[in-house]
Amino acid sequence: MCELLGMSANTPTDICFSFAGLMRRGGGTGPHRDGWGIAFYDGRGCRAFHDPCPSVQSEIAHFIRGYSIKSRVVVCHIRKANRGRISLENTHPFTRELWGRNWTFAHNGQLRGIKRRPLDYYRPVGTTDSEHAFCWILDRLRARWHDAPTMPALAREIRALAADLAELGVFNMLLTEGRALFCHCGTKLAWITRRSPFGPATLVDEDLTVDFAQETTPHDVVTVVATHPLTANETWTVMDRNSFVAFRDGEPVG
Amino acid sequence: MCELLGMSANTPTDICFSFAGLMRRGGGTGPHRDGWGIAFYDGRGCRAFHDPCPSVQSEIAHFIRGYSIKSRVVVCHIRKANRGRISLENTHPFTRELWGRNWTFAHNGQLRGIKRRPLDYYRPVGTTDSEHAFCWILDRLRARWHDAPTMPALAREIRALAADLAELGVFNMLLTEGRALFCHCGTKLAWITRRSPFGPATLVDEDLTVDFAQETTPHDVVTVVATHPLTANETWTVMDRNSFVAFRDGEPVG
Repeated sequence: MCELLGMSANTPTDICFSFAGLMRRGGGTGPHRDGWGIAFYDGRGCRAFHDPCPSVQSEIAHFIRGYSIKSRVVVCHIRKANRGRISLENTHPFTRELWGRNWTFAHNGQLRGIKRRPLDYYRPVGTTDSEHAFCWILDRLRARWHDAPTMPALAREIRALAADLAELGVFNMLLTEGRALFCHCGTKLAWITRRSPFGPATLVDEDLTVDFAQETTPHDVVTVVATHPLTANETWTVMDRNSFVAFRDGEPVG
Repeated sequence: MCELLGMSANTPTDICFSFAGLMRRGGGTGPHRDGWGIAFYDGRGCRAFHDPCPSVQSEIAHFIRGYSIKSRVVVCHIRKANRGRISLENTHPFTRELWGRNWTFAHNGQLRGIKRRPLDYYRPVGTTDSEHAFCWILDRLRARWHDAPTMPALAREIRALAADLAELGVFNMLLTEGRALFCHCGTKLAWITRRSPFGPATLVDEDLTVDFAQETTPHDVVTVVATHPLTANETWTVMDRNSFVAFRDGEPVG
């Protein structure tokens, strides 16, 4: 099962997420009873859709399936609840404003004792460990810089904060401010960079399908990050435990 | 044309917003080319849908039309852009977190010189006067109270802040933290409280239709706030210029 899915591209990329498997198996007793959410950026704006309900009943999943998304940065999360009751406010991804940008965060794992870390500025709306960790990261960034620093400095700091959090348990993370996609692998995360021409354009998981539009230019670069490789016939980079990578415009930065 | 629409109810109320008129006339040259947005609460969680595109092309408007919304607090805005380019980040309503709650804001009007007011904590993502005013309100609330005050104290403070902003121009506002709906009328705003049995359950504007579910209990109370009365055969309270009212569970508070 894929719990985290992210995308970074150098041009607004027309991808279509299909949750057919999720919808088919998302009943009251299945492993996917805990909802899912997706956020995608359009310039500085950010759209998020959250569905805490079993997907089989989900009007939103049906809508997203038919909705063509043009975006350069996407963060998607399929939840298996382990802390926090199942509710809209506990459904990833989470979003907050920092430095005049919308930040979005999704997490897979558990963090022991995270709630003992004090928060100055950002407060969780829900009760998950994950949202607390997100607020803690943004608190640290805000405390360190009054305005957005350079991208290399930002990536270094987020790498250090993620490594700190990973000491509390399992921490697989996708984080973005709408330009870069910051990825920490605590236990499992993989990525692939596809360049035009994309060739076979479908990524398949038991839960979802990602279709890339056929119309691409020779300059298109799209990186997909997921809990595990979504295709068997391509070479994914399976990240090491406790490693970090950031992408911007589909290319690694840092 | 209705620019602001809000709802406060004492029970999750099944309302169906229909944007048929908006979709029919929302072409590239019509008065509604500037998009619309809606936010509705589910407990502490908040869902928002924004559509900066002409509604006639809008997949989101079609989706919302068929989506049954159960909520106690709703804020909807239909935009006529006067400041800030048409884009996702400039589309109302705006949302920020304060005191562990999602706050949502929508505004009709213009505010001269608002951008000269300094902001400490909250920064606009887009370029509208409205988002700047929203950030200013939250800044003032945060500076005054570390944690949420009592509802009467909060309503008094928001009333004073709104009156202050209204001196800069036209300021018709809907603001909520998910429980109370704070309403400032600068020039035009009206409301009606409906109690079960609701009788004729349809509110019609040239742009939209609001249908209440037929199934209500004898205790249901629903207040609707709009730029102008949406029905001719009922007695709406047309607010005085520069007046304020707050609703919780459909009833006035303050």
